[in-house]
Amino acid sequence: MEYMKIKDKGKDEGTTDIEDPHPRSGPGGIVNNPKTAIHEGSEWKRKSLVTIALTVLTSSQGILIAWSKRAGKYDYSVTSANFLVETLKCALSLIALFRTWKREGITEDNKLSTTWDEVKVYPIPAALYLVKNLLQYYIFFYVDAPSYQILKNLNIISTGVLYRIILNRKLTEIQWSAYILLSIGCTTAQMNSSSDHVLQTPIQGWFMAIIMALLSGFAGVYTELIIKKRPSRNINVQNFWLYIFGMIFNVGAMLTQDYDEIMNKGFFHGYSAITVCMIINHALSGIAVSMVMKYADNIVKVYSTSVAMLLTAVVSMFLFGFHLTLPFVLGSMVVSVSVYLHSKGKVLR
Amino acid sequence: MEYMKIKDKGKDEGTTDIEDPHPRSGPGGIVNNPKTAIHEGSEWKRKSLVTIALTVLTSSQGILIAWSKRAGKYDYSVTSANFLVETLKCALSLIALFRTWKREGITEDNKLSTTWDEVKVYPIPAALYLVKNLLQYYIFFYVDAPSYQILKNLNIISTGVLYRIILNRKLTEIQWSAYILLSIGCTTAQMNSSSDHVLQTPIQGWFMAIIMALLSGFAGVYTELIIKKRPSRNINVQNFWLYIFGMIFNVGAMLTQDYDEIMNKGFFHGYSAITVCMIINHALSGIAVSMVMKYADNIVKVYSTSVAMLLTAVVSMFLFGFHLTLPFVLGSMVVSVSVYLHSKGKVLR
Repeated sequence: MEYMKIKDKGKDEGTTDIEDPHPRSGPGGIVNNPKTAIHEGSEWKRKSLVTIALTVLTSSQGILIAWSKRAGKYDYSVTSANFLVETLKCALSLIALFRTWKREGITEDNKLSTTWDEVKVYPIPAALYLVKNLLQYYIFFYVDAPSYQILKNLNIISTGVLYRIILNRKLTEIQWSAYILLSIGCTTAQMNSSSDHVLQTPIQGWFMAIIMALLSGFAGVYTELIIKKRPSRNINVQNFWLYIFGMIFNVGAMLTQDYDEIMNKGFFHGYSAITVCMIINHALSGIAVSMVMKYADNIVKVYSTSVAMLLTAVVSMFLFGFHLTLPFVLGSMVVSVSVYLHSKGKVLR
Repeated sequence: MEYMKIKDKGKDEGTTDIEDPHPRSGPGGIVNNPKTAIHEGSEWKRKSLVTIALTVLTSSQGILIAWSKRAGKYDYSVTSANFLVETLKCALSLIALFRTWKREGITEDNKLSTTWDEVKVYPIPAALYLVKNLLQYYIFFYVDAPSYQILKNLNIISTGVLYRIILNRKLTEIQWSAYILLSIGCTTAQMNSSSDHVLQTPIQGWFMAIIMALLSGFAGVYTELIIKKRPSRNINVQNFWLYIFGMIFNVGAMLTQDYDEIMNKGFFHGYSAITVCMIINHALSGIAVSMVMKYADNIVKVYSTSVAMLLTAVVSMFLFGFHLTLPFVLGSMVVSVSVYLHSKGKVLR
């Protein structure tokens, strides 16, 4: 639920056209292979598929949350649900792995066992998110809720900048313009009458918001770095280790935040059919994020979740009678132009 | 006061880089001449100069209006002021002409006398504006004032489309994207809490707004067509005839709208030093618009007046203590990116 931003019709162009200026071997480690052209085609297909999956899952996530909130606040322990999400992701990765083993046998790339050297970086993204979530409690001393909603769009910028610096991947000038427009468009689309407060944010608030954006951007970019470090490594093994640490961190959160509640009312108190749907959806979109990191990149992820944010809002208008606002219309237009320019920027490179 | 939109730091790139895909002779009719390179340099200089003049004049226009309104509503007859503006423009064109005659003697290109064939098209822009201004009274049956402010930005789009169709001048895809962003950015920058009403505009309101945008866009593009039709023709002669018809149309407006007031209170009733400043400013910016049409084009005019709108708002914050709003900040950012993309779009053409 970190990113909930935009895109719409131009989706396919925008996301599938993002290319890697540093050609690396495909997931099978095949490069300089006569089959490269065919593999590029199948890579393109896979990239599109995971991107569309992420967009659809993230938008339905937003709708499920809006739906569950209609009845008021959460009746269940959020940390227990988060723990179940991580567990489900782990289980799904294992199921996918079993199928791979059955098909291909156990190889160096798909074996579950790992080395300390490989696995030691996996807790880092989870740890970064933890620090960010802790900061979140303190930022509200300086920033009100509507302003925080606006400031969260700094994540888009920080992700772009860190993507450039840490992964050393280049965007063209047109693509940078498009990317900046993406963040402006998302912010515009989310504006309401209270958003102006953000301009009265004290310097401490800005400072914390920037730190949080950097932490969250760094976590995303670092995940991409880990997953792409060894391109031939099976993604489900990488996910398994990523999610194992996610489970551990969430046990910690459960114990510190909801220990009493879980002990008194039980682990599953307040769960409903919709809670189960949300857990399944969160797990699937989590896996989709990993897939996008493996087969596309953080920029695709940001575009994808941004478009999902807009789709959520549009669907919410029909489902929950939300009103169309002028900022939303204008913001969506800016995002659409941004998606177009992003793909155009590549061609004109 | 028709257009009041954007641009800022990137101004020079944005406006001076607009180029004509149909090379035509320069104002001296010199093309395929060994001196072409030198002339291109001086053309570029002149283009920049008139563009900067238009931007500065239009922004100070906005500030003068805000200033004069601080004391309340207008104390003087607006139609009489408009008539004086046209008269002043005529006089200034004549003065410039006298100087040219003294320097160069009377030639076929700078003689004041004209043919029916040349002059018959000159009243058309003024007539179009007249129809548009009449429609303006009726649109308020369907559209409220804040919505009208938003809908006026349709002018930007209509000017671009008519510029493409009537003048057959091309913009690249990046430049079109930039141009669409310009209109979105201007609209965003002008948003306030009442702007959302625009989405409830009935179909008749939209229809009238589109007609008005087309009329105003057509008047602008047609003026460019007239002025550029004979590039070697002295601009001051062209202006003289344009403004003569402006004077005639304004006499009509005075007689129909303010006849009683002028007869009872006198032509100059309610005039102050600031009124005189405004008349001089309007006259000079009118001439700057003509110059931009001659040496640049309608797209430059729209960018220039758009940036002027933003500059006016920024200066008003300091002078009149207007508050900075988030829509204004975001809109200005979109416009800045638009200006950058416009110049970038040319290079990548």
